[in-house]
Amino acid sequence: MSSTIFIQTPFQSKSLNKSLNTHFVASFKLPVSLSFKPRTAAFSKRVHIRAGLIEPDGGKLVDLHVSEPERELKKREAASLPKVKLTPIDVQWVHVLSEGWASPLTGFMRESEFLQTLHFNSLRLDGGSFVNMSVPIILAIDDLQKASIGESDRVALLDSDDKLIAILTDIEIYKHPKEERIARTWATTAPGLPYVEETITNAGNWLIGGDLEVIAPIKYNDGLDRFRLSPVELRKEFERRNADAVFAFQLRNPVHNGHALLMTDTRRRLLEMGYKNPVLLLHPLGGYTKADDVPLSWRMKQHEKVLEDGVLDPETTVVSIFPSPMHYAGPTEVQWHAKARINAGANFYIVGRDPAGMGHPVEKRDLYDADHGKKVLSMAPGLERLNILPFRVAAYDKTQGKMAFFDPSRAQDFLFISGTKMRTLAKNKENPPPGFMCPGGWEVLVEYYASLTPSDNDRIPQPVAA
Amino acid sequence: MSSTIFIQTPFQSKSLNKSLNTHFVASFKLPVSLSFKPRTAAFSKRVHIRAGLIEPDGGKLVDLHVSEPERELKKREAASLPKVKLTPIDVQWVHVLSEGWASPLTGFMRESEFLQTLHFNSLRLDGGSFVNMSVPIILAIDDLQKASIGESDRVALLDSDDKLIAILTDIEIYKHPKEERIARTWATTAPGLPYVEETITNAGNWLIGGDLEVIAPIKYNDGLDRFRLSPVELRKEFERRNADAVFAFQLRNPVHNGHALLMTDTRRRLLEMGYKNPVLLLHPLGGYTKADDVPLSWRMKQHEKVLEDGVLDPETTVVSIFPSPMHYAGPTEVQWHAKARINAGANFYIVGRDPAGMGHPVEKRDLYDADHGKKVLSMAPGLERLNILPFRVAAYDKTQGKMAFFDPSRAQDFLFISGTKMRTLAKNKENPPPGFMCPGGWEVLVEYYASLTPSDNDRIPQPVAA
Repeated sequence: MSSTIFIQTPFQSKSLNKSLNTHFVASFKLPVSLSFKPRTAAFSKRVHIRAGLIEPDGGKLVDLHVSEPERELKKREAASLPKVKLTPIDVQWVHVLSEGWASPLTGFMRESEFLQTLHFNSLRLDGGSFVNMSVPIILAIDDLQKASIGESDRVALLDSDDKLIAILTDIEIYKHPKEERIARTWATTAPGLPYVEETITNAGNWLIGGDLEVIAPIKYNDGLDRFRLSPVELRKEFERRNADAVFAFQLRNPVHNGHALLMTDTRRRLLEMGYKNPVLLLHPLGGYTKADDVPLSWRMKQHEKVLEDGVLDPETTVVSIFPSPMHYAGPTEVQWHAKARINAGANFYIVGRDPAGMGHPVEKRDLYDADHGKKVLSMAPGLERLNILPFRVAAYDKTQGKMAFFDPSRAQDFLFISGTKMRTLAKNKENPPPGFMCPGGWEVLVEYYASLTPSDNDRIPQPVAA
Repeated sequence: MSSTIFIQTPFQSKSLNKSLNTHFVASFKLPVSLSFKPRTAAFSKRVHIRAGLIEPDGGKLVDLHVSEPERELKKREAASLPKVKLTPIDVQWVHVLSEGWASPLTGFMRESEFLQTLHFNSLRLDGGSFVNMSVPIILAIDDLQKASIGESDRVALLDSDDKLIAILTDIEIYKHPKEERIARTWATTAPGLPYVEETITNAGNWLIGGDLEVIAPIKYNDGLDRFRLSPVELRKEFERRNADAVFAFQLRNPVHNGHALLMTDTRRRLLEMGYKNPVLLLHPLGGYTKADDVPLSWRMKQHEKVLEDGVLDPETTVVSIFPSPMHYAGPTEVQWHAKARINAGANFYIVGRDPAGMGHPVEKRDLYDADHGKKVLSMAPGLERLNILPFRVAAYDKTQGKMAFFDPSRAQDFLFISGTKMRTLAKNKENPPPGFMCPGGWEVLVEYYASLTPSDNDRIPQPVAA
């Protein structure tokens, strides 16, 4: 029983001469090997418990901020440089890059990094090792902007209020192959992909890569900046708490008790494995999300209630905001979500059904196979050091009146409460079955939907993934 | 001058902290580094000249043929197994797999290999090393076939004449995500991709992977089987000739003197580097090609004339047929073309403009950036051991009356003879400028176009890539 808690579907895949390595946690004794034959060696192996946090990708965390004494100098320099205007999403990427979430990237990708990302979901380092990098972090410019840059080897990046954000140095301008980028990242070119429509369709036909010199830490002044801990700050916090394991949970939806069950159960198991103080990084995504997702501010309110209501233990939980925008690119994107958390110090990553997935924009089906995300994650180059924790779906167990891991042998006892169902209940100010979500958290949701205008409420609801 | 012969466009890309490794041949002193700063270390490095041929991927060449004494046994076994009918292209893939071109693959891909191919263009081996694998080698079946297989763990594979080709063992059946496969492989989902229309659009919604037991070597009985040397046979031939370097040239078009210039020039340079006996593997692709490509039998006739006419030296040239079908998937496919040649013993691979490319099926542009192929190839996981030789475009130099490497400083002296132009000339029984192609080779082309019915001749011509 305990041996199957984290796995939704035992993998049926068989390997190339039994030669495929995966990096699911061996000591969970999961039947998740991609080999056909039981990997008995792995069964007896235990996760190595190490002192200190996992190393960031490339060995050291990138910090792209200009030092305080240099700021004025850089501002004066920027005044004479060609200017490029950033969209709010571009600024989010500057934020991501500046704090080293994408270490060892030192700025917007040049073509060699862009091509490696598209083709290999990884970047080769000196010495031949790989770091994972699955989504392009790039800056688009149009013909006019390109012309205005001329022969300059650096540009100033301004936000929509003309505030100087950064200088991009040692620049390289290359073609923006939109169709190719979309096809290779999303595995479809169908119209209606939210990130594509928001950032690519009308973007320029050129990309500009280079190294970033970020003038000052990015702030949003939305009352949530205090939750936006950088990888350096998170690492300090984990060290302060003497964490000997950090398990990350990426989410972009309200936390229900199924999630909570999963997180508390993970901690229990890490303790069983011999860790003394596993700490949860509850890490809601804070960048761009599609229109029908619950906005960050409401999600943060809801998460706060969940902690207040004691569903999660604040002593062993760090809630922080992950500044990345959302691609909704399924198995490709989940690698980015995992990789960034290595840089923040996490050595365990929880992955559920259809991570970063969504419905197909034009066909009546999920865009991605619900199991591909965790399979791809388990095989991804550059993520070998991360322990992947796939989990079984939780559902409402009517016999217990609470969320529990779904047991297919008594399927009739379980109620699946989809995101659509949850939203409909919250919009109608109805209550979900008791035990689905803590009452304080539920009230936040009801309040959120009540705050929407009727036209907002008409938006097509999307299923809630973990 | 000699330092730029092989490079079409010096790369402008700059690297991730100067940390990107490429594997262009360093001793050619090419300005092909992806680093911004000159890689002075690399400039002084020389290609290591080794005794013996390059090792196949995974350390040993796969041979999937059943031994002669076992054949009858296997045939009897097959009689009682569920049957799957193969298309002619499926049989070509069985051929490719059976001889170890795709080593270490031992059969049609299971899901773990399929996903790694789509996402990473590479497969992870025991020990954490990677081999390159960029195109899915998979077998599609439909619902009916899936049902007929039931719980069997093996199936018999028959050709279109119901002849037993192979047994597929230890099978795994999984979903065939067509749109995703197409998008990730071709970087477009536009209608009109030849391989897609031929093999995917109407294929079944399931894939069946497993290990192959091939009953007998695949033969086509088209008079060309003698040219179809397996990797084992090619390696023996290279050893017989005491080759200390093998440079492969993939082609699917008639050889003109620009190609010949390139190949002879490569040999000269390898000699300069200190190799004593570099041998050319002139390796026309023999599997499926699109309707407007010159068919294999005519190409082989043309290649034979080129050798007879002394344009290439038969002493140092091995002409053989590469049995793979053609995807026309540009930068993704060129990796497969290169990887397969490692298995055949080649340690140098010549790559030109837009390898494996074609026109966009619905837009008026090339489907792939003409430079992406060689860039991707130079960075591809699993191809580190292969020396990539990018080359400059050859064109007709009017001042010399022969094909020469294009010199942009006197562009007006050069005439580009496109594939369309070449075809039009051959169809009209006109002659190209003297020195474009040896007369015997040209006659074969004229003869081929004369043999076509008018409706064949109306097909939209495609540009000829190298």
